[in-house]
Amino acid sequence: MEQAALKERAAFAAVDRLVTSGMKLGLGTGSTAIHAVRRVGALLAQGRLRDICAVATSQGTAMECENLGIPLYTLNAKAIGGRLDLTIDGADEVDGENRCVKGGGGALLLEKITAYASAAWAVVVDESKCRSRLGPGFPVPVEVVEEARLTVKARLEALGAEVSLREAVRKAGPVITEHGNLILDARFPEPPSPEFLEGELNNIPGVVENGFFTRLRPLVFIARTDGTVEERP
Amino acid sequence: MEQAALKERAAFAAVDRLVTSGMKLGLGTGSTAIHAVRRVGALLAQGRLRDICAVATSQGTAMECENLGIPLYTLNAKAIGGRLDLTIDGADEVDGENRCVKGGGGALLLEKITAYASAAWAVVVDESKCRSRLGPGFPVPVEVVEEARLTVKARLEALGAEVSLREAVRKAGPVITEHGNLILDARFPEPPSPEFLEGELNNIPGVVENGFFTRLRPLVFIARTDGTVEERP
Repeated sequence: MEQAALKERAAFAAVDRLVTSGMKLGLGTGSTAIHAVRRVGALLAQGRLRDICAVATSQGTAMECENLGIPLYTLNAKAIGGRLDLTIDGADEVDGENRCVKGGGGALLLEKITAYASAAWAVVVDESKCRSRLGPGFPVPVEVVEEARLTVKARLEALGAEVSLREAVRKAGPVITEHGNLILDARFPEPPSPEFLEGELNNIPGVVENGFFTRLRPLVFIARTDGTVEERP
Repeated sequence: MEQAALKERAAFAAVDRLVTSGMKLGLGTGSTAIHAVRRVGALLAQGRLRDICAVATSQGTAMECENLGIPLYTLNAKAIGGRLDLTIDGADEVDGENRCVKGGGGALLLEKITAYASAAWAVVVDESKCRSRLGPGFPVPVEVVEEARLTVKARLEALGAEVSLREAVRKAGPVITEHGNLILDARFPEPPSPEFLEGELNNIPGVVENGFFTRLRPLVFIARTDGTVEERP
């Protein structure tokens, strides 16, 4: 099976297994999570799901929900009250303990706020995202305020990272996040402790959030090329 | 002596004692720090200081520098390179170990980036700012992204805080920071460990920065009503 089909398969498996009517539901961002959004939209349109209150983790996901007729709320809305039943999202890398690196799409801030506000969290990936260790492969995105670009870069390098400012492609200069910040992509050639780094990076002044997700462990749905979907607690 | 005069006296003492020509200098925000800015401007105008490269911690301080002719740089500028020789700033509360609570003026994010990027840090206060313990008095400002208002409030309350959203006075609705965020003021009736909380608060998703300053201990200049200025290392 091709990667695009695997992404859809993982996402559909998670929705069909976990989403029930009446849920407060966080919806993730990216090329795998978008299939979960579309599946929820289709089930709502068919009447097989009802009364979903959705929270989107990015403008892209919000636009998809708007087009599909999925009722959107903010985390602050009375119907949500800052707590979700479930969030379904993708990941850039997942290790054997279900720790993740996320933020390839630049949406790590709302993704983490949403995931960590959820009673249950599911991550949907194709098997190419599975790693034995996090850090040396996909660089960890670090969202920083513009004024702290150099000071944060220096601190990341002192922690052993190779750091690059994420450059935009269809605008001049760097990528600007939905909250007006920059992204430093930090590759760690020597695999560090993801738990330690998740906390340590947030204590660098000017860091808004980082792409290590270790404090809440998701249920991971892994679509394999043989057509199966592993559900790994 | 009146409080306004004490603020000026503490600020002047710090500038006269610590600032020398050629310095890369962080300039703080607020009704005490502004006197340090003005003192630097006056010494430059008199030719008693030369070649100061200043970094401002807020738009208000930047405007004051612009008006006084103090050369302004960003922390990212080549002349600064992410490292300052000295930052002089005020504080809302200082305890006996020179730990501070800052952010009453809403500038805590740039204030912390700047202070923690400095080889030396001086805090200028009148004696009314001195406390035996931090937490029960001046509420600790916590800068949060809007989407996380309720989730962060709940986590702060779980840590024992009484939390209020900072409301604006000369605009409708809440105060918006220079980085487009909200401020939750968190009072801790039971004095907690400021070191613990400084780290813990930054690990709540959606918290951009918090007003505990414990990781770098400043030299504190305390102006007393008897006319003396104590310099407390």
